[in-house]
Amino acid sequence: MNSEELYGNILKKRSFLCVGLDTDIQKIPQHMISYEDPIFEFNRAIVDATAKFTVCYKPNVAFYEAEGSRGWKSLTKTVKYIRDKYPDIMIIADAKRGDIGNTSDMYARAFFSMMDVDAVTLSPYMGRDTVEPFLTYEGKWAVLLALTSNKSSEDFETLRLDTDRYLFEKVIEKSASWGNTDNLMYVVGATKAEMLADIRKIVPDHFLLVPGVGAQGGSLQEVAKYGMNDKCGLLVNSSRAIIYASDGVDFAKVAGERARKVQQEMSELLG
Amino acid sequence: MNSEELYGNILKKRSFLCVGLDTDIQKIPQHMISYEDPIFEFNRAIVDATAKFTVCYKPNVAFYEAEGSRGWKSLTKTVKYIRDKYPDIMIIADAKRGDIGNTSDMYARAFFSMMDVDAVTLSPYMGRDTVEPFLTYEGKWAVLLALTSNKSSEDFETLRLDTDRYLFEKVIEKSASWGNTDNLMYVVGATKAEMLADIRKIVPDHFLLVPGVGAQGGSLQEVAKYGMNDKCGLLVNSSRAIIYASDGVDFAKVAGERARKVQQEMSELLG
Repeated sequence: MNSEELYGNILKKRSFLCVGLDTDIQKIPQHMISYEDPIFEFNRAIVDATAKFTVCYKPNVAFYEAEGSRGWKSLTKTVKYIRDKYPDIMIIADAKRGDIGNTSDMYARAFFSMMDVDAVTLSPYMGRDTVEPFLTYEGKWAVLLALTSNKSSEDFETLRLDTDRYLFEKVIEKSASWGNTDNLMYVVGATKAEMLADIRKIVPDHFLLVPGVGAQGGSLQEVAKYGMNDKCGLLVNSSRAIIYASDGVDFAKVAGERARKVQQEMSELLG
Repeated sequence: MNSEELYGNILKKRSFLCVGLDTDIQKIPQHMISYEDPIFEFNRAIVDATAKFTVCYKPNVAFYEAEGSRGWKSLTKTVKYIRDKYPDIMIIADAKRGDIGNTSDMYARAFFSMMDVDAVTLSPYMGRDTVEPFLTYEGKWAVLLALTSNKSSEDFETLRLDTDRYLFEKVIEKSASWGNTDNLMYVVGATKAEMLADIRKIVPDHFLLVPGVGAQGGSLQEVAKYGMNDKCGLLVNSSRAIIYASDGVDFAKVAGERARKVQQEMSELLG
């Protein structure tokens, strides 16, 4: 998928919502626990209920790894289900990987060849050779951490460099030349919405993946105000606020309603 | 395992070698491919041949993920095999994870509860809440990336801050207060051996995990000269140079000989 196709989907659905599949076996409705693959069944129900309102799913890989090889199977099945039934919807593996070249090759193979997601989140700390293997796959994306939504992002991401830039600004500035607007996007937390204006000066045309709306307290209006460009340029993620909106047998229906509500707000913001 | 026990093992074996299990299905001897779980069988043979000479194994998680859920099974079996047969040997999952608190909880669960390794490598970019969940497990370690052995480490790790410190120095300085010498160590690449002296000024007592000796060209003598402290304080990793020393049916025997050679050099350096 390239950025033009992604923007096309946004216009078609009037939504720039990304639903985060942070599926925790301890939080899914009790009646599903006895199923053979409860994580996959939960995801399938959530996906079917929300697909009309979203342009992207973002499984959070940690939640699957926490179940061992069984969790990897649930993740793989989930990705295949979305890919087959909703081929237009982007899938981002939220994995925050990053290693030296020959190891990053392996991570790219894991997510792009074995699993066929569209994008993987990556940590920039180790530099360019961490990212490059992901950029060699046609139609696939690297999503680089820039300024994250957690409190501790202040520990290192917002350190001042000797050039008077923040570290996260340097990360964006430098990495932007490694790829292009069709294979590279950035994670910018919604809890730092006002920073989006500064980031747009560095990368006016790149897509930004924005977590932190919903459970973490970021504002969708602020994100759109500071971060939107003339081709939307935003994927705004909501995980817990949608997928755990109800823990009863109606969980999928309620998740769908929540997703629709967010989609309607997004439709207005798209103008 | 605490640092005293690790040092005890180093003295007993006269070795501070960590053998990296970067097991690539495309590089293991041809005669193993038809086995039911060739990756595990390769690892088992390597482990049995090298266990006398090493205090640590470091499976590189990317290589297992690249085989999907089957790879996670091979990894889990490998960890269990080492744990059961060689309980004194430390196991580091080289995973370079790092995410916000509730997600890092899940990664910690994946590696410490589901898999029972002793340590996990982590990327510091997102700050303290990335690391903390790993420090709450008794006897377990977080191994934080500081200065890595790849060329691109110059992109960000060695940026100068407004305080005239390098970013990696700030990472070490700040994070050292999050844990202690029994649950926190740092990755410092052997290709930057002379930097070890400066790092020792910041963390004189912490263990350092040093990759980059062998295939990547770092020098064991230099690493020991600049990085060793009075309780050794070093785990030096070698992966490809040991496990792929031969691709014939004698691969394990040759790997064992290589490991023994490194152990003998280490014994001399331990004095």
